Amino acid sequence: MKRFDIENYIAQLSMDCVIFGYEEKTLKVLISKFKFGEESWVLPGGYIRKTESINGAAIRVLKERTGLENIYLEQFRVFGDDHRIVGHPFNAVMMDELPKFDAERFDPEVTAWMTGRFVCIGFYALVDIQKVSPKNGEFDERLEWRSIDDIPTMVYDHNEILRNGLESLRQNLDEKLIGFNLLPETFTMKEVQELYEAVYAKAFTASNFQKKILDLDVLERLEKKFTGAQNKAPYLYRFKNSIQVNF
Amino acid sequence: MKRFDIENYIAQLSMDCVIFGYEEKTLKVLISKFKFGEESWVLPGGYIRKTESINGAAIRVLKERTGLENIYLEQFRVFGDDHRIVGHPFNAVMMDELPKFDAERFDPEVTAWMTGRFVCIGFYALVDIQKVSPKNGEFDERLEWRSIDDIPTMVYDHNEILRNGLESLRQNLDEKLIGFNLLPETFTMKEVQELYEAVYAKAFTASNFQKKILDLDVLERLEKKFTGAQNKAPYLYRFKNSIQVNF
Repeated sequence: MKRFDIENYIAQLSMDCVIFGYEEKTLKVLISKFKFGEESWVLPGGYIRKTESINGAAIRVLKERTGLENIYLEQFRVFGDDHRIVGHPFNAVMMDELPKFDAERFDPEVTAWMTGRFVCIGFYALVDIQKVSPKNGEFDERLEWRSIDDIPTMVYDHNEILRNGLESLRQNLDEKLIGFNLLPETFTMKEVQELYEAVYAKAFTASNFQKKILDLDVLERLEKKFTGAQNKAPYLYRFKNSIQVNF
Repeated sequence: MKRFDIENYIAQLSMDCVIFGYEEKTLKVLISKFKFGEESWVLPGGYIRKTESINGAAIRVLKERTGLENIYLEQFRVFGDDHRIVGHPFNAVMMDELPKFDAERFDPEVTAWMTGRFVCIGFYALVDIQKVSPKNGEFDERLEWRSIDDIPTMVYDHNEILRNGLESLRQNLDEKLIGFNLLPETFTMKEVQELYEAVYAKAFTASNFQKKILDLDVLERLEKKFTGAQNKAPYLYRFKNSIQVNF
């Protein structure tokens, strides 16, 4: 393979993405087992081309890993400590293994570029987990959906990035009504409540919750869901607005 | 003067700061009349040294311009459009005037570096305006405190950066109780209310406002303010916590 074109990317600036999905009443994050090192987990991320906006870079990286376009996406914080990468034990692993992996593609100059200091822009994304077909990037051994209660220790400051992303999701869930991006197109009120409970890691009272959500006037009520038991069939709802993208 | 050391800074990454102050019942922002171009206004900003964190860079730039340390400071968004600088009319002005200003310090390589694409991290700061002695940076003709109702058209996307900073301030004022950083050490309840009214650009009812603020249990009541009129003297308050810095 040809040399990695560091000339095409902004140096020392990267983006990592906390990709949230939701299934089986559980909030999950898509993380990557890296090809380098042992038990080395990372958030999916990438570099920013000199010819694309930072949001364009995030959209591109997300499409590469999930196959999806039109994802709800939001930048939430920059991680810019000068020692977040350089001096970290995993960095020595990268310096050692990158050239062995592909000496032509990752020559000494490219390896030095990749293992130097990076300021990282944190994005989070909300996806319908059923629609995602995770696809490995060049350095991913495999991608896994992991419950937020079951996140391994990741390299560098990636656990801190994830924690910050989750905190932003919680702050924005109510305020910007972004949670519906985690659900399929139609859903029951109980499913909305279960989603909120999974995100906030606490229980809500069904009657209060339903009233609060309906009062927002953002849901369209559809036909009853067919369950076989006619009397207990719950209504299906659909979010009135289209996907909101924050830029 | 010696050549500007581009080697010491991260390329293509900058920071700009919305410095908020408050006086005469008015929320103000410290902006700079630039030395280059005509009627060219900018937010104070700077570059990030390879050996300092992004927060360290913001603290350094703020100290250079205001003389203050221990400022409440928060990053609020990254501005990363690929066309935010390159192609903007002011960029041509910079390319033309920088070398004329000091050909030795800003040689062709430095001029090209400074007028290329930059991704910009937006910070906002809250300062006690009485304590600030604005000090020009190398490119500032003068710094001015301007009311948020009287902000001129600034270069590049600096008006957008300011609008986003103000929006973040409004969101955080209640949630994180950061407004007290804009007041002197002791203040009356009326002064707190006037501050909130200036930030939100709307009026509050005095009794409701006082109850809401006191219920937060973050203020310490001190002696009455001496006004000469014994009966009407208002109480002075002090914020219980010290300055909060978000990193």
